[in-house]
Amino acid sequence: MLLRLYRTVVVGLPRALRVKTTPSRLCIPACSTNDSFRPQHPSLTFSDDNSRTQGWKVIGTLLGLGAVLAYHDFRCKAAQESPRMYTKEEVRSHNSPETRVWVTLGSEVFDVTEFVDLHPGGPSKLILAAGGPLEPFWSLYAFHNQPHVRELLAEYKIGELNPEDEVSPPTLEASDPYADDPVRHPALRINSQRPFNAEPPPELLTENYITPNPIFFTRNHLPVPSVDPDTYRLHVVGAPGGQSLSLSLDDLYKFPKHEITVTLQCAGNRRSEMSEVKEVKGLEWRTGAISTARWAGARLCDVLAQAGHRVRETEAHVCFEGLDSDPTGTAYGASIPLARAMDPEAEVLLAYEMNGQPLPRDHGFPVRVVVPGVVGARNVKWLARVSVESEESHSHWQRRDYKGFSPSVDWDTVNFDLAPSIQELPVQSAITQPRDGATVESGEVTIKGYAWSGGGRAVIRVDVSVDGGLTWQEAELEGEEQRPRKAWAWRIWQLKARVPAEQKELNIVCKAVDDSYNVQPDTVAPIWNLRGVLSNAWHRVHVRVVP
Amino acid sequence: MLLRLYRTVVVGLPRALRVKTTPSRLCIPACSTNDSFRPQHPSLTFSDDNSRTQGWKVIGTLLGLGAVLAYHDFRCKAAQESPRMYTKEEVRSHNSPETRVWVTLGSEVFDVTEFVDLHPGGPSKLILAAGGPLEPFWSLYAFHNQPHVRELLAEYKIGELNPEDEVSPPTLEASDPYADDPVRHPALRINSQRPFNAEPPPELLTENYITPNPIFFTRNHLPVPSVDPDTYRLHVVGAPGGQSLSLSLDDLYKFPKHEITVTLQCAGNRRSEMSEVKEVKGLEWRTGAISTARWAGARLCDVLAQAGHRVRETEAHVCFEGLDSDPTGTAYGASIPLARAMDPEAEVLLAYEMNGQPLPRDHGFPVRVVVPGVVGARNVKWLARVSVESEESHSHWQRRDYKGFSPSVDWDTVNFDLAPSIQELPVQSAITQPRDGATVESGEVTIKGYAWSGGGRAVIRVDVSVDGGLTWQEAELEGEEQRPRKAWAWRIWQLKARVPAEQKELNIVCKAVDDSYNVQPDTVAPIWNLRGVLSNAWHRVHVRVVP
Repeated sequence: MLLRLYRTVVVGLPRALRVKTTPSRLCIPACSTNDSFRPQHPSLTFSDDNSRTQGWKVIGTLLGLGAVLAYHDFRCKAAQESPRMYTKEEVRSHNSPETRVWVTLGSEVFDVTEFVDLHPGGPSKLILAAGGPLEPFWSLYAFHNQPHVRELLAEYKIGELNPEDEVSPPTLEASDPYADDPVRHPALRINSQRPFNAEPPPELLTENYITPNPIFFTRNHLPVPSVDPDTYRLHVVGAPGGQSLSLSLDDLYKFPKHEITVTLQCAGNRRSEMSEVKEVKGLEWRTGAISTARWAGARLCDVLAQAGHRVRETEAHVCFEGLDSDPTGTAYGASIPLARAMDPEAEVLLAYEMNGQPLPRDHGFPVRVVVPGVVGARNVKWLARVSVESEESHSHWQRRDYKGFSPSVDWDTVNFDLAPSIQELPVQSAITQPRDGATVESGEVTIKGYAWSGGGRAVIRVDVSVDGGLTWQEAELEGEEQRPRKAWAWRIWQLKARVPAEQKELNIVCKAVDDSYNVQPDTVAPIWNLRGVLSNAWHRVHVRVVP
Repeated sequence: MLLRLYRTVVVGLPRALRVKTTPSRLCIPACSTNDSFRPQHPSLTFSDDNSRTQGWKVIGTLLGLGAVLAYHDFRCKAAQESPRMYTKEEVRSHNSPETRVWVTLGSEVFDVTEFVDLHPGGPSKLILAAGGPLEPFWSLYAFHNQPHVRELLAEYKIGELNPEDEVSPPTLEASDPYADDPVRHPALRINSQRPFNAEPPPELLTENYITPNPIFFTRNHLPVPSVDPDTYRLHVVGAPGGQSLSLSLDDLYKFPKHEITVTLQCAGNRRSEMSEVKEVKGLEWRTGAISTARWAGARLCDVLAQAGHRVRETEAHVCFEGLDSDPTGTAYGASIPLARAMDPEAEVLLAYEMNGQPLPRDHGFPVRVVVPGVVGARNVKWLARVSVESEESHSHWQRRDYKGFSPSVDWDTVNFDLAPSIQELPVQSAITQPRDGATVESGEVTIKGYAWSGGGRAVIRVDVSVDGGLTWQEAELEGEEQRPRKAWAWRIWQLKARVPAEQKELNIVCKAVDDSYNVQPDTVAPIWNLRGVLSNAWHRVHVRVVP
């Protein structure tokens, strides 16, 4: 239906063609942080009381003073008429082509229903903002801040937000441990509010090779701790004969700064497909519990060495504790083998920067562990304590969670003690475009997705099928070429498939191969497990084709 | 039919029950080498002219002098009657229960048809010797050399081999480059005689954790070179500023001796299953192109260091050349990344011992490369030359073979230049017992096999299904527990499955999981490739069940 509408509009509104030439991926303001959104503020006059509002500075820079003035002019003209006033509630109810698509920019309200299918970045991306403010999206895709975009938008203005409507957010009970959680980006698809767990929608996930901070998937196990960077100390227990360290952020900055691009993935990514086979326990992650950032920090091996630690002949583990804790005061914890921690080639980081910015609060401010190639759960956030032990971390999440089991194991027979904890993850890929259930036009269909493997193994090939796996075509691999044995980051892939006009549907399937030639299993049921982790079967998307 | 016969015989011959108590896996004379078989020799009086006849020494030790004398006594008595004489050709024609099962020991001929189903090691293992001498098998399983076994055998004697029949093997043309290839164990299933390529039968493959040298799978690309150990020199090209080395065996022995258990697997293992999907180019390996040995030698990193080589920031490769060469003089060659070669934890060996013995000629005498976790093809045998280059080996086998491709690639579209050469292999497992097409009795059925993964990743679980993959049971893992990140050797696994009497058939399936949680793909077709390599789908065996 959208596609039919699209063509009608294109014929009727040739001016849209001018817009179509706007490049859709000119700029990656990956440095924007979750904390930089204040959608309740009117217009662009954001206060700068938060030191992490860099996103808006980027906008300002890109926009340039001239554009600001032009826009100001335009707004003054519009204000001369007496505008119709709307509440936020009213705007929120117009969030789909069926109910019409309203958005706000500053205090202005726009009905962009007719523009949805003309949106150069694709209709689905504009729909993500439907019923709410454009600012959080324009901060991610700053090329919107150009005079011609604003002119275009002005044509769709229908009124203004009622200033009376500026209510403060509902007061949280002082006893609510989540009261201090940060504000999040509205594009995130929330799987759990408390603790906060959310993933970027597929439309945005592979839009950029580096995931912008505000839409990086968030997997919190507990409330987000509020940390004062000035008094923060990282405690590193010293080796026998060595010395324990109590490191301030400035102390940590003195270690050689190491910067690497690393994809993190939750063990539960794509769990929703597993629960379609049989019920599992866990958050219903779709394909978005995976993201990629440029991380910088001190190498764990350098810090451990300063505390007197060396590689040992006997089994040993580096245990991490976070500042996030449950009501009993038990902190989140996890561990990795000492051999990995001490291997400079494994590049384990105590990261204090994410995409050139201090870590956002949701991602571990001020310091988190980044263990390249290893399951997200070991990348402990809000890091408080590091110690070397002869046993793995005794935390619930190391010993009673994040383990794999045979499909035959149920909650009556499961024995967590006998299963190893997940460290390296297997080869993975998923389709992000088109979406399952979408309608596409015959001719050339662009299929897009991501592929990654654990343990530093590079993805060397992605096979894509449009006939459910009978025949395959190789996708083009995009994104950074990875280093041998240190392929920590994903590849984005794309295939332009020819689809004949008589085709009624496509069963799109993708599967990746890594450089150890491991492949994804064909189906989900044989890898089903009661916790719904390690879901890496072929990803399948069914779409209808219209001529 | 065999099983029905078994029960008839058991009822009729209660003496067999005595034999059933003989332990079937008491001793692993893994040190026997291919070169120790001289089946043309009469009886046990083998000449000791070959320094590698340790297998027979083991027999002698186990047997003890008393037993030798007892057997001698018995033979003298039997010889007093005038024996019926047979040719080897006649013996050879009796090689199945249908044609009757004859075997020889020394010059004596036995019809053991009625004993086949009473064989404590299982009927299938005795059938391997049908139509030929017992010696090569008894040298592998030396517990046969006991008086009561020989007494039992004597009851089946039907005559003697005709001494006139002692013809020399057919004279090979002097120009035949394979004329000097060594004598091989008769149990090996030959896929190609020239060059010699053969695998152990599944019945023997998982009988021992360490594969005895004589039945270790053999993958030769060219004739076996004949090397004089006294004049042998290994040439190691020195680094700029370093020195080139010309190492005798004694020189090599001076490096610290490093010993590890490593499973080697040919990239073409299980190719026969791939060619059932669609024709592929390559030898029809079944499940036996994989074996495990204890290898000892100098670490490659130590030898390279002595020649002045260091880890480099830029990409580099260690190129190997063998002494085996084609008619144009082109040697077999391959390469591995320098980073792996120089990593002491990767434990790459220049091996001169296999299971405590000098390398057998078929396995690279006197020196071969052993690259743990990496495809067999890079484990260059009869090693002549080592050099460090900025590019991979230019050999055919590195650049135009041993690469993986999408199922969509055929010989018209293949581009070897764009595909990486195979190094680490993916997770693998196969069923060795029961055999496909066998008949088993209901009740408890023992299912057995092997599982392994490349790159030092340990197998952590093997799931077995008897209903084609609908439900799964976990197998017991046997064999050596593997070290983290250095799990170079396979696990043998076993499952005793309950099979109800009403069951008519079993569709047995196995799949392994390694510690990066990679799994085997469900089916063969989606990993099919024109060279038939990397065949690691679930292994499937269909058996009939009798009550």
